[in-house]
Amino acid sequence: MSLKTTATIASFGGKLLKLTHDATTTGCEMALNLYLPPNAGATQQKVPVLFYLSGLTCTGDNCAEKGFFQYGASQKGIAIVYPDTSPRGLKIQGEDDSYDFGSGAGFYIDATADPWSKNYKMESYITSELPKALFSSFPELDSSRVSITGHSMGGHGALTLFLKNPGMYKSVSALAPIANPSNCPWGEKAFKGYLGDDKESWKKHDATELIKKWKSSFDTLIDVGTGDNFYKQKQLLPENFLEAAKQSGNDKGIVLRMQPDYDHSYYFISTFATDHVNHAAKYLF
Amino acid sequence: MSLKTTATIASFGGKLLKLTHDATTTGCEMALNLYLPPNAGATQQKVPVLFYLSGLTCTGDNCAEKGFFQYGASQKGIAIVYPDTSPRGLKIQGEDDSYDFGSGAGFYIDATADPWSKNYKMESYITSELPKALFSSFPELDSSRVSITGHSMGGHGALTLFLKNPGMYKSVSALAPIANPSNCPWGEKAFKGYLGDDKESWKKHDATELIKKWKSSFDTLIDVGTGDNFYKQKQLLPENFLEAAKQSGNDKGIVLRMQPDYDHSYYFISTFATDHVNHAAKYLF
Repeated sequence: MSLKTTATIASFGGKLLKLTHDATTTGCEMALNLYLPPNAGATQQKVPVLFYLSGLTCTGDNCAEKGFFQYGASQKGIAIVYPDTSPRGLKIQGEDDSYDFGSGAGFYIDATADPWSKNYKMESYITSELPKALFSSFPELDSSRVSITGHSMGGHGALTLFLKNPGMYKSVSALAPIANPSNCPWGEKAFKGYLGDDKESWKKHDATELIKKWKSSFDTLIDVGTGDNFYKQKQLLPENFLEAAKQSGNDKGIVLRMQPDYDHSYYFISTFATDHVNHAAKYLF
Repeated sequence: MSLKTTATIASFGGKLLKLTHDATTTGCEMALNLYLPPNAGATQQKVPVLFYLSGLTCTGDNCAEKGFFQYGASQKGIAIVYPDTSPRGLKIQGEDDSYDFGSGAGFYIDATADPWSKNYKMESYITSELPKALFSSFPELDSSRVSITGHSMGGHGALTLFLKNPGMYKSVSALAPIANPSNCPWGEKAFKGYLGDDKESWKKHDATELIKKWKSSFDTLIDVGTGDNFYKQKQLLPENFLEAAKQSGNDKGIVLRMQPDYDHSYYFISTFATDHVNHAAKYLF
């Protein structure tokens, strides 16, 4: 369904649009933010797009307010899409019971297990319905130049959607991604709930499994803070991803930076946001 | 009393410290944030300091999270101090009744009217007790190079504290300041409550009155968004300040920029934060 603009906010020379639409994949109204850089619509030249997928508990608002992506996006002339992290308000039993499952925790997959399979279709929403809605509503966006990045659960989303959809995205990067969800508490809970007990079915949603079968070149920038408690608790496991990439010969283009003392917060995200915009810009231009 | 560090957070190559201390001016524990740029303490060379005074309802956290002063401060090698906006938790009747008076709304003045005069001494806190505590606890800060800036109520604070204390600050700038509080609803309510009904006593806390009597050179950068609803509601009145400066011959160094479409939010602050750091840097180095 078409996007409705509920607010327009000046930011770094461009505009942050607060958007909503009735999404058919999720069966509910979805909210998101779209940042249009200063040059969007100024000429015939369309601007490329960077999807930023947020982490657990977030909406599209958190990073738009605190992530500092608009600064780099304004300079480079890249639009940023900040989608929500799950369907909302469906009244499915248990959807609001925990911070790491249900509302705010869609994990960017299409659920197959009941009662989630009807609405928790964030993979279809992010890769198909939302881009269609955006590119039909905003002709200043270039549907042929799209990149993806994200933080934590959104880093998992970015890596897996890139690896599942060869050619869809020009580049991928991630901040503190959940890089091997099948082997960490967050991922195990989510995959069990959304996909069921068959761990074989989890593999096609796990970046560490997907990289093993990747057959093309693979470049990415991944930042993880050494002071990140979730890293210490082995929720992120970037080493597993790197090791799997090494074993399959796909590690040459992976830049994994362990950032001293940085935590999991938006202080970490904002510090490295411009690096991730610049990473995308290399492939979008 | 000495400052206690309750958290240390990596940000833009430096450190954001969350601090608390028992303040005698306000008679309560005060919290603040201190950003130390990457070079602080790295050499014998002390780093200069920029005080950022926040607006109504804020604590020192909001701008540290959303204002992006750390980005420019990291590049320039300037420490940023983000104080709170009032005493807290004093159990004074009415202190939590409204967003624009009492808690979160100290207005950076020393109250003279009861029951506020005992604790609402934000002017003494910001200009005397807090800097003393900071400079004794953090020898890497240069007490001889201090500038001040702020947003909204904090812009009022920055302008008035600069004008009341010649030589204390190397420079001043403001984002959407309440520039003539004696003539706007926010200022009238606050001054009446904290100072009483005698409007003569208000003048020494009003930037538009203070600039009339200024006898030195005066340079400042003031940004105001044309889409700022509080500007439209005549809470800010930057034109009054500029007009008073003109009449007293103090306007030559005032750069008042009306920023098209920007609102009163942190989207506005973050967009122009680096300009205000750079303005301070001109005078601090």
